[in-house]
Amino acid sequence: MMLAVSSDMLVCGTHFFADTDPYALGFKTLAVNLSDMAAMGANPRWATLAISLPAENKTWLSEFSKGFFSLAQQFQVELIGGDTTRGPLNLCLTIMGEVPYNQSLRRDGACVNDEIWVSGMLGDAALALAYLQGKIKLSGRHKTHCLNALHQPVPRIALGLNLRGIATSAIDISDGLLADLGHILDRSKVGAQIDLDKIPTSAALKSFIDQHHLSVSGGDDYELCFTAPNTYHDNILNIAKELNMQVTCIGKIIADPHHCLRNLAGEPINMESAGYVHF
Amino acid sequence: MMLAVSSDMLVCGTHFFADTDPYALGFKTLAVNLSDMAAMGANPRWATLAISLPAENKTWLSEFSKGFFSLAQQFQVELIGGDTTRGPLNLCLTIMGEVPYNQSLRRDGACVNDEIWVSGMLGDAALALAYLQGKIKLSGRHKTHCLNALHQPVPRIALGLNLRGIATSAIDISDGLLADLGHILDRSKVGAQIDLDKIPTSAALKSFIDQHHLSVSGGDDYELCFTAPNTYHDNILNIAKELNMQVTCIGKIIADPHHCLRNLAGEPINMESAGYVHF
Repeated sequence: MMLAVSSDMLVCGTHFFADTDPYALGFKTLAVNLSDMAAMGANPRWATLAISLPAENKTWLSEFSKGFFSLAQQFQVELIGGDTTRGPLNLCLTIMGEVPYNQSLRRDGACVNDEIWVSGMLGDAALALAYLQGKIKLSGRHKTHCLNALHQPVPRIALGLNLRGIATSAIDISDGLLADLGHILDRSKVGAQIDLDKIPTSAALKSFIDQHHLSVSGGDDYELCFTAPNTYHDNILNIAKELNMQVTCIGKIIADPHHCLRNLAGEPINMESAGYVHF
Repeated sequence: MMLAVSSDMLVCGTHFFADTDPYALGFKTLAVNLSDMAAMGANPRWATLAISLPAENKTWLSEFSKGFFSLAQQFQVELIGGDTTRGPLNLCLTIMGEVPYNQSLRRDGACVNDEIWVSGMLGDAALALAYLQGKIKLSGRHKTHCLNALHQPVPRIALGLNLRGIATSAIDISDGLLADLGHILDRSKVGAQIDLDKIPTSAALKSFIDQHHLSVSGGDDYELCFTAPNTYHDNILNIAKELNMQVTCIGKIIADPHHCLRNLAGEPINMESAGYVHF
């Protein structure tokens, strides 16, 4: 077995608001690291958690722990140690997992003509953030759906495990589809042709005029983006069906790294005018 | 092999001053984690480093890196990943090492009549801290010696590896001899009889009237405290000689956990009047 390791630091004021529900924060601290394991095709096993807290707050810690352990139990991750100290609120989790020798999913294996896939739907977490920042209005089930996507993202562990031997590359979408797919393209020295209209978005997102912007540039989705030879197309759809989840083929890998994004007609997308963040 | 893991979070204002030399800080961030590996008898292999920084400061980061990698290179530790983010200065290192199955040094194996040993000299780091806080004066080689003990502690990795199969318990002294030995006594359900006059102290510390206080309660020493059957007494002295370092037998393990500390005459030490921190 190989050891897969990932560390994430979540800082109050940078990654979350000071008044964030501690249950949701405990959940998300583990979820974002589990998402990294999923992207490596690793089976998560152990974690260490270091916390810096301004003051002892038993209610806060108790709620944080409930959120953390609800997810730890679900994925059988053991908290094996860590550190607790005084200071500005900061959470640093290191997660360790196992993956059979040479079966880990990497970022550097995407090949020309591979299909590009994403799990779930993109942009809802960014929509929830815009709502919390007072930039947009959300209500009813759209609001519930988006806040859930932001606060309690579902780590795609089972999908990652099933993609061993199938996906040629994978990454989890934490900084937005374009930015994270960009890491795969850079490392694999290839380009991509994406059909914007195929990017899966929720009913909540579809009602907003800048849905494309949020679906490709919005962060915090923690869905998987992966590539695989088109011979595996039906296999992948079957895997998703068995896991009762959505996966969508959104484009393909091309040779030319200089025009990384095109529409299906093969025309390069004008990123500037579309308001996208370059990568 | 078993995997040994340790996480430490160092927070500006709690563990170090904002103006601490970044080279020394990089060195110490790794050193305190290596010290945990030493206490487990583990061979350090890989580390992840998460840093939160208020602003990008290339000079600071460059110096920090120099300090970190000078020690990483010396102990062949590979930095395999991490996280960099914006926020109040905070450093979280997770270190992973290997130890053969069932040969790790633990805290729960101390037995009655085992000898208690410490490496190096105790109290110099606490003396340096008192100096930096303006509480005492230090100069010349005493000052250099103590500041070195505080800023660039030497991880006792080689000693830890050589104590596999010999020591019945071990811990590194980060919170002071009494507090850390206390963890061994608690976990092993035994007591200890310590001869205060045998605790090894430097010429710098001997010139201070409260030397006993600093040698048993001062933190940040990062020496090892360990227990072993007295049949290994000469072996341990030979190991230290080969490693060109000092180890000192300071007492023995006793059955009665209610009077954890005594002098050699067997009389309990009055902790309160001596100004010690209870454990």
